[in-house]
Amino acid sequence: MDEFSLIDRFWKPLGDAVTHSEVIEGIGNDGAVVRCPPGQDQVMTMDTLVEGVHFPRHMPPHALGWRALAVNLSDLAAMGAQPLCFTLSVTLPEASTSWLAAFADGMKALAVRENIQLVGGDTTRGPLSITVQAQGLLPAGSAVRRGNAQPGDRICVSGSLGEAGEALNWLDESDTPDPAVDTALQRYRYPEPRLALGQWLREAGSAAVDVSDGLLADLGHLLVDRGARLDWQALPVSDGLVSLRGLEGARRLAASAGDDYELLFVWPGGGPAPSGPKGSALPLTVIGTVTEGAGVTLNGPEGSIQLEEQGYTHFGGHHD
Amino acid sequence: MDEFSLIDRFWKPLGDAVTHSEVIEGIGNDGAVVRCPPGQDQVMTMDTLVEGVHFPRHMPPHALGWRALAVNLSDLAAMGAQPLCFTLSVTLPEASTSWLAAFADGMKALAVRENIQLVGGDTTRGPLSITVQAQGLLPAGSAVRRGNAQPGDRICVSGSLGEAGEALNWLDESDTPDPAVDTALQRYRYPEPRLALGQWLREAGSAAVDVSDGLLADLGHLLVDRGARLDWQALPVSDGLVSLRGLEGARRLAASAGDDYELLFVWPGGGPAPSGPKGSALPLTVIGTVTEGAGVTLNGPEGSIQLEEQGYTHFGGHHD
Repeated sequence: MDEFSLIDRFWKPLGDAVTHSEVIEGIGNDGAVVRCPPGQDQVMTMDTLVEGVHFPRHMPPHALGWRALAVNLSDLAAMGAQPLCFTLSVTLPEASTSWLAAFADGMKALAVRENIQLVGGDTTRGPLSITVQAQGLLPAGSAVRRGNAQPGDRICVSGSLGEAGEALNWLDESDTPDPAVDTALQRYRYPEPRLALGQWLREAGSAAVDVSDGLLADLGHLLVDRGARLDWQALPVSDGLVSLRGLEGARRLAASAGDDYELLFVWPGGGPAPSGPKGSALPLTVIGTVTEGAGVTLNGPEGSIQLEEQGYTHFGGHHD
Repeated sequence: MDEFSLIDRFWKPLGDAVTHSEVIEGIGNDGAVVRCPPGQDQVMTMDTLVEGVHFPRHMPPHALGWRALAVNLSDLAAMGAQPLCFTLSVTLPEASTSWLAAFADGMKALAVRENIQLVGGDTTRGPLSITVQAQGLLPAGSAVRRGNAQPGDRICVSGSLGEAGEALNWLDESDTPDPAVDTALQRYRYPEPRLALGQWLREAGSAAVDVSDGLLADLGHLLVDRGARLDWQALPVSDGLVSLRGLEGARRLAASAGDDYELLFVWPGGGPAPSGPKGSALPLTVIGTVTEGAGVTLNGPEGSIQLEEQGYTHFGGHHD
């Protein structure tokens, strides 16, 4: 199969599964053509997943297709954007039609649900790696940025944390199926981008990031030059994770593991705690407060720990 | 070096080298924010280059930086767009600062010259591979598409063909420098996207593609369901390539080798031959005529050859 057969068989049907009036030309030319509506800004993000680095070898291709799009949608969510279109580069050692069919199916399931149209890309031979560049729209000037946090603002996170990290640990150590980790594996393989929450956060004017590197690492990215006081016992963990790891083990994973793709955001102090978009069942938890100056203090049951300002990206290593 | 140090040291300076007022937020958030001017369409394209597949091992990083951006700019050129911004994913086995500095320098040289701003991307560990997603602007509805060719229209190509293919052949066979192939190597390493020509072609309303897969393969993509009669002796080849390969060898390379990134386009029959943008020294050569139906006839000194309709993407193989 040459690249053009692959386009006809897999990528054109994926591109045809969603159609936006803003997309003037999709797949089939040297480039796609998009007409951004007046009064809208366009948000763009790009993430690469490399086999053996970002996902384990022999990851089911259906999950990989979903996940490669989901991690980019999660960035759009953190900016408050509504998905519009994406381009996709797939590099794979051989053109296996069953692999590609499952990959395209997994990606299509999420693309259709979140209404994002594939408009172009590249398919090449090489070590397995997926790059997605995704684009979204939002009212001009309303993008949710990092920074912007004021002392006294609350620090909040959506959903629960740590399960994707648990799944990765398990995948590193085991080959045999275990129903006890099914929920965690599902969360790792099929992350749920928090798009409705991100769009709702636009109106609150707060700052947000998605939790991809780990809560404490991403907190550093969110606050820029502010600090935080975090309540260890408030970290939201699922019952399933607690039953696997115990409460303290679950919280350690929640603090340091990445890949959950929840949104971490700042909510102005004073008024009521954030309720989230109307009708949403996604829990939002206040886990701490923004402080003057840099550095993070973690308040636990046995006292408080002062974390190094520079320690964010390596925090996982200190704990384990 | 973690990813954030790499961003600060290499990607932010590259992003700061060009600033467009349309870019509201560049590098530094979960996504970039771009405001497309009213009345403009946005063209987007994505190309991946994998080591050992699209470029030889140990390709000088300065050239790789230039080339990875150039092949995407060439697609923007083929659509008639003016460069605006790009996102960049770099996957590399280890974060060598000297390699990255040279790569970023090569990319910056072209980005500054063609006025395109880096707005985001991803840096990951893995087998060497570069993906660029580039975006350009053009007046709404004016994109140059494939297809559109009418019988009797002339088929034209810019510049000269075959030198990049000669360089690749040489790189496959030799490790020792040879001044005779310097010009060809330069063309392979530092392709020149034909942006001014592409923008000029918008007004002529013709169809265009860039020559990346090889003249005959790309002719198939350009004409879609039309055919062509090509004049073998008209294929433009440089004096340097003729001195290396002889006239017939040069023409064979011109017909089948890719990587030259000239523009191949259709020009309405009847009027004068295309002159190109005002003040441009880039030669434009009429190499044939669009015919009814499919298939390509190659008229040479010893008669004509009928090429298979399906043979485009494998044509190089038939000749060698």
